[in-house]
Amino acid sequence: MTALDTFRRMVAGEIDGPPVGRLLDMRMTEIDEGRAMFVLDAGPQHASPLGTVHGGIICDVADAALGCAHASLLGEGETFATVELKINFLKPVWTGRLTAVGEVIKAGRTLTLLDCRITDASGSLVAYATSTCMTLRQGEE
Amino acid sequence: MTALDTFRRMVAGEIDGPPVGRLLDMRMTEIDEGRAMFVLDAGPQHASPLGTVHGGIICDVADAALGCAHASLLGEGETFATVELKINFLKPVWTGRLTAVGEVIKAGRTLTLLDCRITDASGSLVAYATSTCMTLRQGEE
Amino acid sequence: MTALDTFRRMVAGEIDGPPVGRLLDMRMTEIDEGRAMFVLDAGPQHASPLGTVHGGIICDVADAALGCAHASLLGEGETFATVELKINFLKPVWTGRLTAVGEVIKAGRTLTLLDCRITDASGSLVAYATSTCMTLRQGEE
Amino acid sequence: MTALDTFRRMVAGEIDGPPVGRLLDMRMTEIDEGRAMFVLDAGPQHASPLGTVHGGIICDVADAALGCAHASLLGEGETFATVELKINFLKPVWTGRLTAVGEVIKAGRTLTLLDCRITDASGSLVAYATSTCMTLRQGEE
Repeated sequence: MTALDTFRRMVAGEIDGPPVGRLLDMRMTEIDEGRAMFVLDAGPQHASPLGTVHGGIICDVADAALGCAHASLLGEGETFATVELKINFLKPVWTGRLTAVGEVIKAGRTLTLLDCRITDASGSLVAYATSTCMTLRQGEE
Repeated sequence: MTALDTFRRMVAGEIDGPPVGRLLDMRMTEIDEGRAMFVLDAGPQHASPLGTVHGGIICDVADAALGCAHASLLGEGETFATVELKINFLKPVWTGRLTAVGEVIKAGRTLTLLDCRITDASGSLVAYATSTCMTLRQGEE
Repeated sequence: MTALDTFRRMVAGEIDGPPVGRLLDMRMTEIDEGRAMFVLDAGPQHASPLGTVHGGIICDVADAALGCAHASLLGEGETFATVELKINFLKPVWTGRLTAVGEVIKAGRTLTLLDCRITDASGSLVAYATSTCMTLRQGEE
Repeated sequence: MTALDTFRRMVAGEIDGPPVGRLLDMRMTEIDEGRAMFVLDAGPQHASPLGTVHGGIICDVADAALGCAHASLLGEGETFATVELKINFLKPVWTGRLTAVGEVIKAGRTLTLLDCRITDASGSLVAYATSTCMTLRQGEE
């Protein structure tokens, strides 16, 4: 079974998502080859000392969408690591649903570049992220 | 009271940290002008589908250390926003204490650049982050 | 006269571009509000020790397209500084025309986020960059 | 002969540096395992439309220092590619000598993270960059 098969069953509610999703009130809502959508319901539990949603929480939902968009392209027996993630925070967020859509910009045999747009409940862009992911295969590092 | 005064009381346990710290098992352990240390106790609740700590969780502790290192320099009546954060993940993490130390590389009147080293319980570097923070003053944007 | 007016005259060949363009064989070919296109004719003079075009040269054309896409939005009396630039190199380049298109992702009063796609003569994506630019006004920092 | 051997001969003036160095008035002045220093003599030929040194030129000297710091660790028969580069511009530069020191933060078998400090003639920090480089070996991608 590929990661994409597993993700489709997660989106359909047939299997549970990972622990970090339950901790953060975050889940995958759409998955396709090279594209993943996550939602995170931002609440008072995510607040930083400034009263707004902690920036790292926005990284959490972006990293999930980016990593799963990449993983959706993996073959059986392949896994991956996130090499780096860069995010620009474009406006503060308090509470409400955040939606993150991760998509492949360019897929390579070893390295893939992706981006992610994170919007608030009104559809306004609150952050933009890019990430490099590395495909790992048995017998290779 | 400045942010630094508040942070010193947090480190001393006299006042509570923000909600996101309780959610993530993360807290400030040292604070000084232009430098902040946070620890996060990584456990099974932080696991991604890969079984390792979700990369976004490492962003959470990095963002906290970077933001507080910057906020420690603010005067009364000043606040800030994180403009961007870039992180490189250098090795996978399962469980155990992560320590993030945020420090100022160069402080400006409006924009400040900081970096953060995140190490595991054995002191090995697991991630490296940089961030740009923007100081906001009343009467300015 | 705004920067956009000046850029339009550069594209039309009525006025010269800046010295760095002549040094690097790089020039603006299209300009509109929030969007700039540059071309750079990569030749043997741009070669790194690896024999390929030096990565920094690709930064040069990206930085030009990003900065001018931002500057095209400035009012009279406004100027700007580039805060940060992030680039992913997606394939090696030897010689031939590189085209960089910079576009605004989100424009703010002070900070604007842009991206840039750099393609080779066959239209293949060779690099992807993002940049944060800061608008500076008289009487402000 | 390793890259480090070649670089030592370049620094000693026994062999020429690459074409891009001559084009940009940039050359390696120190090399050691995991560390490279470059200088670039910024002049009017590097000016952007703002009159300051084009940001991309600062990327050029940073990319050179970062790439050679990484290449200094390669064995015979190994080569490399720069995966990504991130730079923060901390102050404008007009003319004068820029010095870039690239150093390894963490070297891995495949991926290595490095940083680079770029200073002006007075020793003031004008930019800070990080970069991920990928080691390529025969028989691997």
